This record gives sequence, C-alpha cells and structure tokens, in this order.
Amino acid sequence: MNLPSQLLEQAVEEFSKLPGVGKKTALRYVLHLLKQNPDELKKWSATVARLSEEIKYCNTCFAISEQPVCEICSNPVRDHSTICIIEDIRDLIAIENTSQYKGTYHILGGIISPINGIGPMDLNINALVKRLEEGAVKEIIMALPSTMEGDTTNFYLYKKLSSFNLSVSTLARGVPVGDDLEYTDEVTLGQSILLRVPYESSIARK
Amino acid sequence: MNLPSQLLEQAVEEFSKLPGVGKKTALRYVLHLLKQNPDELKKWSATVARLSEEIKYCNTCFAISEQPVCEICSNPVRDHSTICIIEDIRDLIAIENTSQYKGTYHILGGIISPINGIGPMDLNINALVKRLEEGAVKEIIMALPSTMEGDTTNFYLYKKLSSFNLSVSTLARGVPVGDDLEYTDEVTLGQSILLRVPYESSIARK
Repeated sequence: MNLPSQLLEQAVEEFSKLPGVGKKTALRYVLHLLKQNPDELKKWSATVARLSEEIKYCNTCFAISEQPVCEICSNPVRDHSTICIIEDIRDLIAIENTSQYKGTYHILGGIISPINGIGPMDLNINALVKRLEEGAVKEIIMALPSTMEGDTTNFYLYKKLSSFNLSVSTLARGVPVGDDLEYTDEVTLGQSILLRVPYESSIARK
Repeated sequence: MNLPSQLLEQAVEEFSKLPGVGKKTALRYVLHLLKQNPDELKKWSATVARLSEEIKYCNTCFAISEQPVCEICSNPVRDHSTICIIEDIRDLIAIENTSQYKGTYHILGGIISPINGIGPMDLNINALVKRLEEGAVKEIIMALPSTMEGDTTNFYLYKKLSSFNLSVSTLARGVPVGDDLEYTDEVTLGQSILLRVPYESSIARK
C-alpha cells in the first residue's frame, strides 16, 4: 500500500500495531481521526500520552489503579481471606460485572506459555506467595482461561501453593447457561457429563 | 463496564469513537498500549498530535498531500485531460494499486446521502466545476460506490457536468474476476447479462 504522505504512513504504522488491526483498518482509523476537529485530536493524543505516566498498578493485586492500593484491596467490606487468581484486568472487570464475587484478586499479568516464551518468572507469582505468607488467606480460586496454557498455569500454581493450608478451586466447567446442547462443543459437553452435579445443588445456587 | 481508573475510562472512551470499535475492543487496544514502553506511547501520541497540524490536502484534487499540490497533480507524465471522481483517499490508493489508470483524480469527500444529511453542497463539487472550466479536461470517470447513494451522486454529477463537452463514464459493473457464477449475487449477474460485451473486446483488454 503506497500512501501519499509520510506522516500518514507513520500513523498507519502505529495503529497497525494494535492487536488484530491490519494496514487497511489502521488507515480507516487514521482517516476517521483526520475528519475530527484539531481539538479532538489533541485531546486524544494527550490522553494516550498520559497513559504511560499516570496509570499505576495496585501494590497488592497488580490491578490498574489510581492509588498505590486499589479500591478492591482497600475496601474493608470485601472478603480478604479469598483471592481470585486471574490473567489480566479484563478478567477482573468480567468477574466484577457478575456481582457474584466478594473476595480480592491477584493479577498474574499473563499465563505460562512456552510458545510465547512466558515462564513462571515472568508472572506476579512471587508477590502472590508473599501475600499468602502473611497468613490471612484461606481460599484461592484459580480463574484462568480454560486452555492448555491456563491448565498448565493452574497446575504450576497448585504445586507451588501446596505448602500453604488453603482451599484451592478452579472455575466450574460445563454447558454455558442458555446454550442448546447441540451447539455445545464435544469436549465441554463430555466434561459436563463427567462433572455432573446433584440436581438439588444445581437448583440451590439459583 | 466499570473500569478501575478514570484515565483508563477516558482512554477507552476515545478509542471507542473509532469506526467499528466498541468498548471491549477499545479496552483491548488501551491495555495493549499500556504494555508498551513509555517511549513507544509518546511516539504514538506525538504522531496523532502531528496529524491535525501537518496533514494537508492538495489544492486541486483534495488528496492528502505534504505539498500544496499533490504528487499526482504535479506529475507531468500523468494524463491531465482525464479526471477520475472518487469518494475518498482510500479509493485513490485502491485505483493506484491497480496500475491501470494514468489520469488525475478528484476527491469529493463523500457522496450524496440524505439519510446522513450530506447534500451536494457538502462535497468538493464546485472545485471540480472550476477545474473543468479551465478547459483542459476531456474525460470524466465517475468511480463512486455502486450503491444507491453512489448512483444518486453519479446522476447529480452527470446533470451538473452536462454543459461541458466531456466524455463521461462510470466503472464497468459485472462478475468479479475469478468468481464462480453460483456465488455472484443476482443483481450483479443480471446486470452482467444485460451489459454483456462482444467476446473480441473482452479478450483484447487482457
């Protein structure tokens, strides 16, 4: 793609670094920006510049936060004896949106993935161990992706945390709520039969 | 979606103004940016800031250009007696990539679309008329989208330009090259029968 201006080319280059964005989509984004008035564009660029300087991470759980300790970790109403281990901030937002969880979080910042060169040392695991050593935590919920990498990370954490006296669980796997069985993939459907639950307990949860 | 930081929320807000980008994709983009090093982010924000100040448009054809007159309009090798009328710069890039066109362009900056409140006055039509009044142009190719809005704009332009002594054409419509007939939509296939071309001329073009 030959663009008629170097600056345009550079802007397209920057935008095409975004995940899932190719040159054509990047050009569409840049042309959209060009149609905005200059004040809009300046506001946009100032916001991006502020990101690198002002976004901080919680000292305890590594969530994005404007304070040294995030709102969840500093909230006395939350259950500080339970930690939910997640991959990144998007999982925190997703779980918070369910309103079903009242404990705290710990963001690993990734999952073990040899293909992408990510090992246990690249994750916030030492900080997690330190939190556990303080002794207040009784329960760990491992809410990592249900992929091979997620399973590997679950197993690593399970071994690593076995010296602590903790109840360790993972998310329930099964048929998504509202799904027709014929559209559920075989692996999930198979697992949901193996992991079937007594009917009484399934209605008690609703 | 409740985000844990106002600045994050603001950045997501800005990115979700991009065409086709919702809150979830915007968050994905912003989190990707946050993983970059601060220098990358500063470069990014500087590029966006420069867009509003440094991108200029060609005085003649309204293409994005770094000079007052763009490379195509100032190129003596191009055929200045032919103008191809297009909607925006992406069409120019697409046509240039075919290497089949040696004339100049005129960017309308949109097409007539009553639903979006875009009338002839919002397009670069007066500037086009001025170019034609100079008398050097012999041929007009209307390369607008093959939609109802494109057809409306074609018809408006055809009427508007009828006082000039010009050869006016639109792009050929028919079965895309390399397509199976069974996958071609009915309207296109129907038109391609009505607008059938003598076999001799179809092979002569190759």
